[in-house]
Amino acid sequence: MSKLSDRIRIVLIATSHPGNIGAAARAMKTMGLQRLVLVSPKSYPHADATARASGADDVLANAQVCTSLAQALQGCHYVFGLSARERTIPWPQMSPRQCADYAAEQGEAELALVFGREHSGLTNEELEACHYHVSIDANPDYPSLNLAAAVQIMCYELRLASVQPLIKVGSLPAPVDELERFFEHLEQVMIDVEFLDPEQPGHIMRRLRRLYMKAEPDKQDINILRGVFSAAQRALGVQKNRPDNT
Amino acid sequence: MSKLSDRIRIVLIATSHPGNIGAAARAMKTMGLQRLVLVSPKSYPHADATARASGADDVLANAQVCTSLAQALQGCHYVFGLSARERTIPWPQMSPRQCADYAAEQGEAELALVFGREHSGLTNEELEACHYHVSIDANPDYPSLNLAAAVQIMCYELRLASVQPLIKVGSLPAPVDELERFFEHLEQVMIDVEFLDPEQPGHIMRRLRRLYMKAEPDKQDINILRGVFSAAQRALGVQKNRPDNT
Repeated sequence: MSKLSDRIRIVLIATSHPGNIGAAARAMKTMGLQRLVLVSPKSYPHADATARASGADDVLANAQVCTSLAQALQGCHYVFGLSARERTIPWPQMSPRQCADYAAEQGEAELALVFGREHSGLTNEELEACHYHVSIDANPDYPSLNLAAAVQIMCYELRLASVQPLIKVGSLPAPVDELERFFEHLEQVMIDVEFLDPEQPGHIMRRLRRLYMKAEPDKQDINILRGVFSAAQRALGVQKNRPDNT
Repeated sequence: MSKLSDRIRIVLIATSHPGNIGAAARAMKTMGLQRLVLVSPKSYPHADATARASGADDVLANAQVCTSLAQALQGCHYVFGLSARERTIPWPQMSPRQCADYAAEQGEAELALVFGREHSGLTNEELEACHYHVSIDANPDYPSLNLAAAVQIMCYELRLASVQPLIKVGSLPAPVDELERFFEHLEQVMIDVEFLDPEQPGHIMRRLRRLYMKAEPDKQDINILRGVFSAAQRALGVQKNRPDNT
């Protein structure tokens, strides 16, 4: 079993203040984590990031910079999105401690914790790329944790959880990029059978994403379900409309 | 019993960077604490403190400034000193979680958490003014938490210890009889699209049962999925073959 700290990436989306990136790197290193991924940071590299990173300049120097969340999450088996806001369609929720315990139990899985913008957090679409929605319990009158403070709490819980990890048996869920292709295929087949109106999709895909992400399908599950979709499309004579043939 | 948050003061000794004082105030307020005590701060008040406090400017404005630790601790029943360094004469030790649980159990006691200087922490004399020595477990190669980050972790643990667990909201999963009708419908549609051979079904239904039972679909999820199946059957002209029309 590989070390939890080697399997976790901390993903920061569109961070405005470079000082927060440095402070997040420092928070990570104090808790023994090192894999930082930045999605479209506003100002980076930047002297403020370096200053606030202090002795964690190696974490900062090795940070991966991406232009999309999908790129940042490539190869991940479990994705946890940090968010303080309630959503119209609630996602499976975890506390930081539950998240850390859960992460520590996934023997070989590749994991990502995703943190949103300082002022507006994660969009609905970004949250829907996550398996779980993690909320740090906070003062309802002032729930506004600093970004690096939220990173510190999560990394602290991960450190505590990784001290005594439990071993979980069972197959890994499909990587998120395969899951995305599954969702595209599902959406297309629902359009093909005229269940879903692409002009007025409503919340249907959002509900189905939540359902299947909770189910944590593995590669074989995905193959079976996509096999059913392809069979339906063949039977309807719309096979060529498939968005993706992989 | 008075609220834990009313009985706890956060004491910062000789803080060098006023930004850290502001960030500590913010960390406190996000976790519902408000009593900040500053012992001989290097630069205070200061614009950096106000800027980093963000919406916790009330905590900052109400901070008590003292010239000695003794003054800061007046009236306290229990004092906890944060320190990463081992001492020649070890003091009774606690983890942050033990400290928070212990604090929450002291019905009416007045409590203080004491944080030292950014670079050198607490002196031996200051630590000896504390009942307990609290250490945040950290990376031995880089245990250097930012002051406000350490305050954030402690306030987070205090909040968890003082708040009752929240009741998890969410809809009930669909009753098992509805789930069984869903599985029958799923099986029929897989036969209709010629994905499943009823003579040689293999383990497909078993895998899909496991997947969907893990997902715990609610009534609305079931309605959506069965709606897709019915649409596919209509499109194929096999609607009358449905085993169950409920």
